[in-house]
Amino acid sequence: MRIADLSRESGVPAPTIKYYVREGLLPPGELTSPNQAQYGDGHLRRLKLIRALTEVGGLSIAATRELLSAVDAPGRSLRDTLGKAQYATTPRLGHQASDQARQRATRQAGDLLRQRGWQIKPNSPALQLLIAVLAALRDLGEDDLLALADAYAGPAEQIATADVTTVLGRPSLDAMLDGVIVGTILGDTLLAALRRLAQENASAQVAGDASNRPAHR
Amino acid sequence: MRIADLSRESGVPAPTIKYYVREGLLPPGELTSPNQAQYGDGHLRRLKLIRALTEVGGLSIAATRELLSAVDAPGRSLRDTLGKAQYATTPRLGHQASDQARQRATRQAGDLLRQRGWQIKPNSPALQLLIAVLAALRDLGEDDLLALADAYAGPAEQIATADVTTVLGRPSLDAMLDGVIVGTILGDTLLAALRRLAQENASAQVAGDASNRPAHR
Repeated sequence: MRIADLSRESGVPAPTIKYYVREGLLPPGELTSPNQAQYGDGHLRRLKLIRALTEVGGLSIAATRELLSAVDAPGRSLRDTLGKAQYATTPRLGHQASDQARQRATRQAGDLLRQRGWQIKPNSPALQLLIAVLAALRDLGEDDLLALADAYAGPAEQIATADVTTVLGRPSLDAMLDGVIVGTILGDTLLAALRRLAQENASAQVAGDASNRPAHR
Repeated sequence: MRIADLSRESGVPAPTIKYYVREGLLPPGELTSPNQAQYGDGHLRRLKLIRALTEVGGLSIAATRELLSAVDAPGRSLRDTLGKAQYATTPRLGHQASDQARQRATRQAGDLLRQRGWQIKPNSPALQLLIAVLAALRDLGEDDLLALADAYAGPAEQIATADVTTVLGRPSLDAMLDGVIVGTILGDTLLAALRRLAQENASAQVAGDASNRPAHR
């Protein structure tokens, strides 16, 4: 199909499609004349994926590019390939907490992994992310929120088991890779939505009459 | 303190502090001479909060501004104020899935709320977010990932109960408001980190030998 057809099928404006090609997110179409390119179903599917990751998953163009490059370059084994894709879904933070907060957060993260018996590589980006968020909570003095890490770990385990079972149940490596990318990124958004809905329901239940008192500070 | 002190205490460069003031995220300091402003502990705390929301929570400047304005303008009751803040933590999506996918996603979301017995206002932004992510998964043809919504709902409920109990246990409205903002946004990041760690552990466990087979497609 031509770019106009690709645009109509995907709902993505043609200039945006060209932008994704320039940014290396979408492979160029096959040139059939000097100013005419043909696109296939693979382009349509990739375009839907780019939109879902950026619009629903909230990823930047740079993060999307990095993530898609992990899809396009398989590793040596299934585990390598899926592990690489999973690592690529984890945001790297530039934020620097205080040294003291980072040290204490590193210790708290280590204790949590030991208590749960989780086997994690030392270079796991998710471990770095955990330390960064615990350190930020420490620097903000949010001690009761720090304690939520333990309360979240069990539910996170249930969620992760469902994730991994679903992805490994897929019939091909390509389908599994796609499942890691889409499942991890859109799964974060799905979880954010469900958590807020459950919060809205729980605050109505837990708060009771107390929450109707006037908002004097 | 002067801006140089505020910068040293917070680790945020002075030009960035001035940028936050211009963007309406941080209140201006009190002018003590035509080109000298004084900042207080409230500024330092707000600055740490801005950094945590943008750097660790991944919020844009616009989203941070909107969220902080909810903190600065309390509602008529405690429930109003906390509810308003909670709604402000939910991203609004511009993504438009196909009409058919949206209709089916709306039905799926309604079924899920009924099955869980969750009491949700029809204008809840989290409900819109849930519908948007389910519609995107439908348009991508990810049927097995769609089914994860049910698997996530129970763990999301456990997480939300811990969240709400923690926030309502705080001693003042200001502290509760702060807990809603920080707990919801940094809680998303905390959960993303723990979910990925649990996935890494679970894939080692569930995959077993199968995952070491070569990555032929």
